[in-house]
Amino acid sequence: MVIADIAVMPLRPFGCEEEMYKVVDACINEIEISGLKYEIGANSTTVQGGLDEVFDLAKKIHLIPFELGCERVITIFRIDQKQGGITIDEKLKNHR
Amino acid sequence: MVIADIAVMPLRPFGCEEEMYKVVDACINEIEISGLKYEIGANSTTVQGGLDEVFDLAKKIHLIPFELGCERVITIFRIDQKQGGITIDEKLKNHR
Amino acid sequence: MVIADIAVMPLRPFGCEEEMYKVVDACINEIEISGLKYEIGANSTTVQGGLDEVFDLAKKIHLIPFELGCERVITIFRIDQKQGGITIDEKLKNHR
Amino acid sequence: MVIADIAVMPLRPFGCEEEMYKVVDACINEIEISGLKYEIGANSTTVQGGLDEVFDLAKKIHLIPFELGCERVITIFRIDQKQGGITIDEKLKNHR
Repeated sequence: MVIADIAVMPLRPFGCEEEMYKVVDACINEIEISGLKYEIGANSTTVQGGLDEVFDLAKKIHLIPFELGCERVITIFRIDQKQGGITIDEKLKNHR
Repeated sequence: MVIADIAVMPLRPFGCEEEMYKVVDACINEIEISGLKYEIGANSTTVQGGLDEVFDLAKKIHLIPFELGCERVITIFRIDQKQGGITIDEKLKNHR
Repeated sequence: MVIADIAVMPLRPFGCEEEMYKVVDACINEIEISGLKYEIGANSTTVQGGLDEVFDLAKKIHLIPFELGCERVITIFRIDQKQGGITIDEKLKNHR
Repeated sequence: MVIADIAVMPLRPFGCEEEMYKVVDACINEIEISGLKYEIGANSTTVQGGLDEVFDLAKKIHLIPFELGCERVITIFRIDQKQGGITIDEKLKNHR
């Protein structure tokens, strides 16, 4: 089990916020469909799952903006893995 | 008003998780003291404030691990700014 | 002396690549003016300097896109600091 | 063709720089073996390849530190993709 956070940034050619948020909402919807545990943050979405699962999911949602007319996408994907596994709840146990 | 997320990663010479989490807790404590609105995520903490405020805070907490015996620190600081300002609540309005 | 890399991403409302690259070029120009040692990478620019210097520079170039008509900017700023200081040349000594 | 940069950060339990750099060198060696075009930066390595290729490579090198005794690894993987493809040389044409 690893913790990963994913931020998909549609760069062009969106002129207004609505187009941009439509893309972000489609990405978050795909994360929900994945069945993985996830938490939505203001700048990225954090998911918890097997290493292969989170890599597959990150690749999938990185491609969503192109299906919605975007021409340039930067995705940032950060993976935190611990020998023996780690969960979001364990990592945040001192803060919730 | 900007939204920024900060992840401070103490690299050396911590041998155990407890030392590492002690540093992270001290960083989060400093964020709380700042009085800025914040949300703790599994891989980073998101803060909301003026541009100068969030830069000053990021610099301050980047230095905390050194005070606690850490010898190498990588900090990642991501700033999202919108003409006219943006808030965490506005950005997440479709998801909460 | 710390090593930092900065990536300024102009999100809206640029419709074409030229507008986007004009912003990135203006950012890199400002880095050159700073007098700090820097290296341009495909996804970010790495600078070497004092902690205050690199924070000041990151803030300055984060604001450049707004002066050029951009309405939404995400900047990613990563700082690597070592007790006693570190340089780009030292960090890459095995690879150049 | 996409441009991706990868930074693998071994967090624990390395007490000295040498252990840390040994891991980083092993990661860069694996990138070289991949046959993809790459450029080594001070804070990350940039690779150019197909989307599947760079994802597979990122996953592979994220796991290398564990083989070398590391217990906690954070990897940051940033993908820049453009409709129609993009290369490092094209992206940096104004700067080299």
